Amino acid sequence: MIIIMDTHATESEVESVQREINRIGFRPFMNPGVERKVIAVLGELDVRKADLVDQFKSMDGVARVELISDLWKLASRSYHPEPSVVQVRDVKIGADEVVVAAGPCSVESERQTVELAHAVKAAGAKMLRGGAFKPRTSPYSFQGLGEEGLRILAKAREETGLPIVTEVMDTHEVDLVCKYADVLQIGARNMQNYALLKKVGATKHPVVLKRGLGSKVRDLLMSAEYIISEGNQNVILCERGITTFEDSTRNTTDINAIPVLKQWTHLPVMLDPSHATGHWQFVGSIARAAVAAGVDGILLEVHGDPSHAMSDGPQSLKPENFTALMRQLSKVAAAVERTIQI
Amino acid sequence: MIIIMDTHATESEVESVQREINRIGFRPFMNPGVERKVIAVLGELDVRKADLVDQFKSMDGVARVELISDLWKLASRSYHPEPSVVQVRDVKIGADEVVVAAGPCSVESERQTVELAHAVKAAGAKMLRGGAFKPRTSPYSFQGLGEEGLRILAKAREETGLPIVTEVMDTHEVDLVCKYADVLQIGARNMQNYALLKKVGATKHPVVLKRGLGSKVRDLLMSAEYIISEGNQNVILCERGITTFEDSTRNTTDINAIPVLKQWTHLPVMLDPSHATGHWQFVGSIARAAVAAGVDGILLEVHGDPSHAMSDGPQSLKPENFTALMRQLSKVAAAVERTIQI
Amino acid sequence: MIIIMDTHATESEVESVQREINRIGFRPFMNPGVERKVIAVLGELDVRKADLVDQFKSMDGVARVELISDLWKLASRSYHPEPSVVQVRDVKIGADEVVVAAGPCSVESERQTVELAHAVKAAGAKMLRGGAFKPRTSPYSFQGLGEEGLRILAKAREETGLPIVTEVMDTHEVDLVCKYADVLQIGARNMQNYALLKKVGATKHPVVLKRGLGSKVRDLLMSAEYIISEGNQNVILCERGITTFEDSTRNTTDINAIPVLKQWTHLPVMLDPSHATGHWQFVGSIARAAVAAGVDGILLEVHGDPSHAMSDGPQSLKPENFTALMRQLSKVAAAVERTIQI
Amino acid sequence: MIIIMDTHATESEVESVQREINRIGFRPFMNPGVERKVIAVLGELDVRKADLVDQFKSMDGVARVELISDLWKLASRSYHPEPSVVQVRDVKIGADEVVVAAGPCSVESERQTVELAHAVKAAGAKMLRGGAFKPRTSPYSFQGLGEEGLRILAKAREETGLPIVTEVMDTHEVDLVCKYADVLQIGARNMQNYALLKKVGATKHPVVLKRGLGSKVRDLLMSAEYIISEGNQNVILCERGITTFEDSTRNTTDINAIPVLKQWTHLPVMLDPSHATGHWQFVGSIARAAVAAGVDGILLEVHGDPSHAMSDGPQSLKPENFTALMRQLSKVAAAVERTIQI
Repeated sequence: MIIIMDTHATESEVESVQREINRIGFRPFMNPGVERKVIAVLGELDVRKADLVDQFKSMDGVARVELISDLWKLASRSYHPEPSVVQVRDVKIGADEVVVAAGPCSVESERQTVELAHAVKAAGAKMLRGGAFKPRTSPYSFQGLGEEGLRILAKAREETGLPIVTEVMDTHEVDLVCKYADVLQIGARNMQNYALLKKVGATKHPVVLKRGLGSKVRDLLMSAEYIISEGNQNVILCERGITTFEDSTRNTTDINAIPVLKQWTHLPVMLDPSHATGHWQFVGSIARAAVAAGVDGILLEVHGDPSHAMSDGPQSLKPENFTALMRQLSKVAAAVERTIQI
Repeated sequence: MIIIMDTHATESEVESVQREINRIGFRPFMNPGVERKVIAVLGELDVRKADLVDQFKSMDGVARVELISDLWKLASRSYHPEPSVVQVRDVKIGADEVVVAAGPCSVESERQTVELAHAVKAAGAKMLRGGAFKPRTSPYSFQGLGEEGLRILAKAREETGLPIVTEVMDTHEVDLVCKYADVLQIGARNMQNYALLKKVGATKHPVVLKRGLGSKVRDLLMSAEYIISEGNQNVILCERGITTFEDSTRNTTDINAIPVLKQWTHLPVMLDPSHATGHWQFVGSIARAAVAAGVDGILLEVHGDPSHAMSDGPQSLKPENFTALMRQLSKVAAAVERTIQI
Repeated sequence: MIIIMDTHATESEVESVQREINRIGFRPFMNPGVERKVIAVLGELDVRKADLVDQFKSMDGVARVELISDLWKLASRSYHPEPSVVQVRDVKIGADEVVVAAGPCSVESERQTVELAHAVKAAGAKMLRGGAFKPRTSPYSFQGLGEEGLRILAKAREETGLPIVTEVMDTHEVDLVCKYADVLQIGARNMQNYALLKKVGATKHPVVLKRGLGSKVRDLLMSAEYIISEGNQNVILCERGITTFEDSTRNTTDINAIPVLKQWTHLPVMLDPSHATGHWQFVGSIARAAVAAGVDGILLEVHGDPSHAMSDGPQSLKPENFTALMRQLSKVAAAVERTIQI
Repeated sequence: MIIIMDTHATESEVESVQREINRIGFRPFMNPGVERKVIAVLGELDVRKADLVDQFKSMDGVARVELISDLWKLASRSYHPEPSVVQVRDVKIGADEVVVAAGPCSVESERQTVELAHAVKAAGAKMLRGGAFKPRTSPYSFQGLGEEGLRILAKAREETGLPIVTEVMDTHEVDLVCKYADVLQIGARNMQNYALLKKVGATKHPVVLKRGLGSKVRDLLMSAEYIISEGNQNVILCERGITTFEDSTRNTTDINAIPVLKQWTHLPVMLDPSHATGHWQFVGSIARAAVAAGVDGILLEVHGDPSHAMSDGPQSLKPENFTALMRQLSKVAAAVERTIQI
């Protein structure tokens, strides 16, 4: 349920409504960036819905009360009809420019990372991605450099000015990762790690939330709702392929999810063609498709020497291929009235 | 196994090789359109492979003998490295132009069909699609107008010049449908109806072969192989969505299949965003994505009055939306160095 | 919609109702085997539903009129509350005994088939299965012996008395296969080959309808409806595994489908653990599970020399393993108050 | 790689081998419960494999060196050929008795929980399951009673003697949950929460590891490997349904996973038919199937008043239905030479 206040509602009228929401056992949530105050009433409404609508309608300063039928409330277009823009330093995600974040799967060394950062920046990338804490299927695989990896990323940012996106895997690492990262990444395997979502929701850090391999679009939105309802509205969704019976690619890119998400939510949407295909030869085609379909950003793995990468080599582009791809993406963006500056 | 003949091989040397292939229990298949003769040896090679390579290598006029590791042979890029172009009257599928085939799901009446044919032609469609024999999940749903529908399609072709694509559902209807149609469509539910594939393979009619909802890319290629190995090389593949756990759309568009198919086969590839999404609101986004990903054609459902369509109304575009979409597709095609003339 | 006639309704009252159903554009379908006449009204009811209920209610001899909300009508438990029993010679499928049909994937020779028939009969099988027309993914794989295979099956029946189950793949083969087979099998790939379903529906032959790899339970029931609505009520459903992301087995057995089908339809239900797993080592476990879950029959591949089978060797049981399995299945059947006589 | 020591190997020979493993950058892991010492060498072996085998073969006291081709090592049957038994107080999981753990989805009150505990114990359950920390798709759904729920579970154990199984959702709750629980449950959504797996692996508490909805059997084993390689061998695997296109049930029970897991790993395997079906009417059929397929345990939701349950009501059995089911399961267990004492 959302309560739309009158344009002339006084602060004390707004406070009365909020107090009443608290009193009856729900949580009020104020949408800040709009002309007139909109208050979301959060909690399980169940059978009392109709009564509550009437109750709030009759309060002073209330213009309208509406039920939101979606299961997600704060992430819904009904609550927030305009597309959201998430600001990361001077980069805007969800605006005209389609933002490309590129970099290595794993941070392997300072030299590798700084060199790659320069290379992807030169090609037009606006953010640097790279993993310091790596969720690996096998406990015997390289698990990432940890805090040393974060320090290297910060160094690369210092040298290039690119904001950095990096994964956080556990609640106890959130504070540490926040010290270094501009954007926290929640990986696919942790999409429904609710403790982590809440902890990240309690920060104000922008978050890239990757869709779980077996998760529906609606589950992705419910996970976003966990973050937003803790007070952090800087959520960017990321499609990265789902598991299906098809085995010619590592995962199946759910390209349909792009227009579905653009209709169902105001949050910006990215796509990660590296994980969604698993083969660098297919990455370019899917990146172009994603831009044409309407994404707000692309997350791409690039590596100077993919055959010796410590993780995800087969799906990493070489810098020269990345540069060529950026030129193509720029043209596709223009064709759909977006921009990619290269 | 393929046998590449010497450029100077005589006709009688070629015939000797073919005779030998027959003698040892396999079928020879000649690739016609290339400079030097290439003969495919069809059948289960099993353990005798190595011996056979040596045997044929030593024959007069043979330049090289190669094993094709793909399960599909005639559909493979190894056998036919250049992309194939399927000619339908004056339309070329697989060439620079991305061919859009549009029209109603079901042929409902002559007036509806002819009007729509004019409308989609005006917007830039190069072929007319429409169903006369309809495979419907329920026996109680409208099953199509049958031969009357075919006559209406032929009338629409007469008036507009657009070649027609229409489905054939059973072996005993193949001759009838061939009398009217320019392109035979094999529907997703019949992708592994091998009797139908063989019968259609025995015609020379161009075929659009739609991928089954639960079929892998490799199964689609094996079904194409059934058609080609009967002598019909005019096969166009069509991705139209697969079944997955995601339920926000009718099916899940496997956009990855586009670059995979372009790498694995020389056959032209289309995509049907109407069935692949099931909602007209999402069709435009996915059509743009398909063109950006590299398809050779798009199959689209258009209807003058979708809410009263006898089938698939929710996924049909209105003519005015189709016209707007064609303008966008034309720009995306140009961005990826293809064309759509509107 | 179903019309339940009064127990004392006269023949002419029943005929009036049928005439009226025809007059208004629907098809009447009479449920024969019950005490009081029940007439199903087949066709797309759409918006006229409520009026029609009233219209028929007021006719003489009509006791009740009910809408069936399921999409399948004649296959529904609402229309036919008691479980159906399909009779194949002296074998009853859907009664207390869980019927095991066993035999080779492909009929390879008379000797192989007759020997196997004796072996599986000795172990307790009540029907012989074997393929003469084989749907193979590759056109270069063994396609079955055709009519010669049917003759061999008939010979094996003559020698053992076991009724035979064999696949029919195309409308033009239905008459031929009917001459030999006791039960027609519609394979998974043809589950939505509607021309074939209709043709088979026009015979009175019992049919085993296998679920498509990408087909929902509700689609399976709609395909059964095609057969029944043509007048053939002898339909047996068969779960044989669906396609999912799991790749440790050939397919994923949808064991949930057993209780779902038992609740939704009156038709007997079988399960084919050979195709559902693809590995003979797992067949026994899944066959036991199926009996415990409540199936009416099991379809099993058995081969005297699996490593040299012309198809499906890896999933075929040796006769000695089949014999051991039958003893286990017999115990599990007893535990769930069914029988398997060995 | 595993190193099998000679039966007469001295302690110092064993220590030498362990030291050498450490020296070259791997981790030794000793299998304790077997007659002769077996040491697993953990880490990414990559290209050095062959050399290492030779190196260790030549050391004193070493009988044999074997490569394990599975990706999971400590969870593999090659490393530990005999089935493992996990002991929880006086309950053995993985032995002859098929262990049933039953109870409410959520702990709602002391009275509810204690009453249910008595009821399920009377019916034959050997463990009590119940959630105190609940992973819910929506942030607005009931999230569990937290520590109060754990206290209630401990109270129910005190009164009935039943060991308790309860979920832990985050690393920072592990110590707390360990204070109360006999078995830690890792939920499906956290199956690849590697930080949590490691933390739980550092305790010696028995763990029920539930399979993720989009996770392959091999991923489940890799997650088990995370726990075991931290030193905790008390891992029980649990199949609870996967996501597929089928929508007649909440999830699709992967019954094939039972024989696959029994072949691939020595760890005990349970099945949760409540989540795997989502409808109480189908739970009995699938529970019987699971026992017939060979599980070592069943996890079941039971509730005194399902229509008012705070979570998962539709899939919860009433106590009287649970009692009836236990009688059936006991018979099925006997049919497959296992026991369920009721």
